[in-house]
Amino acid sequence: MNTSSRDFVSVDLGERSYSIIIGEGIITEASQLIAPLQLGKKKIIVTDQNLASTHLISLREALKNGGHDTAEIILKSGEQTKSISEFSLLINSILELGIDRETCLIALGGGVVGDIAGFAASTVLRGINLIQIPTSLVAQVDSSVGGKTAINTPQGKNLVGTFYQPRLVIADIKSLKTLPIRELLSGYAEIVKYGLLGDVIFFEWLEEHGPKIISGNPGAQARAVATSCRSKASIVKKDEKEAGERALLNLGHTFGHSFESETGFSEKLIHGEAVSIGTTMAFDLSVRLGLCPEEDTNRVKSHLKKIGLPISLKSVQGIDWNSDRLITHMARDKKVRNGNITFILANGIGKAFICENVQIADVKAIIDEDLST
Amino acid sequence: MNTSSRDFVSVDLGERSYSIIIGEGIITEASQLIAPLQLGKKKIIVTDQNLASTHLISLREALKNGGHDTAEIILKSGEQTKSISEFSLLINSILELGIDRETCLIALGGGVVGDIAGFAASTVLRGINLIQIPTSLVAQVDSSVGGKTAINTPQGKNLVGTFYQPRLVIADIKSLKTLPIRELLSGYAEIVKYGLLGDVIFFEWLEEHGPKIISGNPGAQARAVATSCRSKASIVKKDEKEAGERALLNLGHTFGHSFESETGFSEKLIHGEAVSIGTTMAFDLSVRLGLCPEEDTNRVKSHLKKIGLPISLKSVQGIDWNSDRLITHMARDKKVRNGNITFILANGIGKAFICENVQIADVKAIIDEDLST
Repeated sequence: MNTSSRDFVSVDLGERSYSIIIGEGIITEASQLIAPLQLGKKKIIVTDQNLASTHLISLREALKNGGHDTAEIILKSGEQTKSISEFSLLINSILELGIDRETCLIALGGGVVGDIAGFAASTVLRGINLIQIPTSLVAQVDSSVGGKTAINTPQGKNLVGTFYQPRLVIADIKSLKTLPIRELLSGYAEIVKYGLLGDVIFFEWLEEHGPKIISGNPGAQARAVATSCRSKASIVKKDEKEAGERALLNLGHTFGHSFESETGFSEKLIHGEAVSIGTTMAFDLSVRLGLCPEEDTNRVKSHLKKIGLPISLKSVQGIDWNSDRLITHMARDKKVRNGNITFILANGIGKAFICENVQIADVKAIIDEDLST
Repeated sequence: MNTSSRDFVSVDLGERSYSIIIGEGIITEASQLIAPLQLGKKKIIVTDQNLASTHLISLREALKNGGHDTAEIILKSGEQTKSISEFSLLINSILELGIDRETCLIALGGGVVGDIAGFAASTVLRGINLIQIPTSLVAQVDSSVGGKTAINTPQGKNLVGTFYQPRLVIADIKSLKTLPIRELLSGYAEIVKYGLLGDVIFFEWLEEHGPKIISGNPGAQARAVATSCRSKASIVKKDEKEAGERALLNLGHTFGHSFESETGFSEKLIHGEAVSIGTTMAFDLSVRLGLCPEEDTNRVKSHLKKIGLPISLKSVQGIDWNSDRLITHMARDKKVRNGNITFILANGIGKAFICENVQIADVKAIIDEDLST
């Protein structure tokens, strides 16, 4: 077993602590990686149609060779799978397998699989063991860390779910090879967020090495994933249930979610693209409020643009953007407390902070400026 | 505000600690009782049709007088409400009210309302504030303490849910006045369990004062509820997630659930009746295995019979009982680990313990003996 290229991140949450193991090709070592947890023999793999003919085959073989009893549940691909009706089918499928509390559910896939399978694992028998094997860059750096599970409802995205920590996360860098470039860029928007919110040194490293992450250099990818996970883990440790500091992770997301709502969470604008434009606007808003030097927002825009991410709503085709409608989306968002809009602003690169009483007029001005220039 | 008849039980679970307040007529003081929690103004009351014309009116008035914004969601009465489809409707109704994390859900009702409303509160926005106002005796002594929430699925009862602690429990003894005698007896079976599993003094008190609980003496009822809650709280404190000692609370329940499965969880045999027969059998099984003096099981039977609870399957009309089928139900139960049947046995009254490897043949013999005598 080659261990030279592995990286470990500890997520320190008391009795709910777990490790993230990052490396190239490590899905094939799943059995050895899981062994120290001393779980029951039964493993239920939940994945989606896209992965059934690729990573599922490697994982199944690795677990069978290790003497595990495996069962598989294959979900439809895509965001529409995160519905209550699909959740209902999923929990029935899991329960039909005759599980007990020692059973382990393995979520193999991107954010959709991780979110719905995680929610199922947290609720069947009031919680069984969960292992996350995220296969997209977004999931590796973001949705597999911190224990958020979710499904969508007609009222919005991720409005129903739990905080539920996995026992282990296995991030196999090799699974990024089959990822479309647009998906890779979407994950990159989350990576750059960790530099922007609290780690200027990491941002500088990304300015130099970011292009390698997109072009598929495994070493650069592993380092970026590990650094992002470590950064998120340190924030989640301080605020597991999102009562305060964890909100920093929403840098670019309050704007971003409103853009996604307006485009119906469709392929017109995927999550990381919305976050990239949202992050740009969060910096512009910080400059407007006299909180951040203009050169910092220019540097952010220059880097995002160079890497291939959008930094303006105007680059999104076929949408009739309207600042009032976007603000209505924000007001419906769950990050609203007692009527005030909370934004993550920045005093500069690596210096984000929570601002709980941002004025609607300033937010509107930033959007209108983007649309008019 | 008259505080003379109040009793307080602390459920000590670190940052998830909460109080149970027990007293007569205290629903009308809900606003004052909730005030120290400093929650948001918005209160969503979830209740069922049975209570809409009684306790709901008192609660609504109490909250309105206290300046709360209230909304109400009224569920159909009965166990069939604990389905995933009703859960889906419930979370949609809650989300349509435009909630935020400060919103508080108040579950007003028996075990069904407490279970499904608790599950909803634990999952909308990944958890909002929850207050339980249990109105049945079973709910006051059992299902409102310890944070178990649940819904049923085609595979069985309570197989999907969460561990989620309320912020406060208000047990109004006055709500027991409108309870049918059969429901009161059902709750009594759970009360006597606390004496039998670990508190012989409480059992002796019940031998003397138990009949007053059934005849509606508020002082005796309040004392029994408080003692039961205190007993459960001390067990849950040691084992919140049911990894070990909490299993003691299943005294009489492994047998009991199999009886309920066989009768389809219908009115033919309600929960406490099944527990009463199951508790009798657990003591008989303990005697059979040479673990418990026969006089103790006789004393248990004599007390349950005197109070009006069934102690034999033969007293249940219209069911063709079969020990093999009951054992199949037990084997499907989630209290099975790696194939061994776990039972709660007793070395005598007040001396219950967990036995992880009870033989099927002994269990079968106890059931057959009951059916043949």
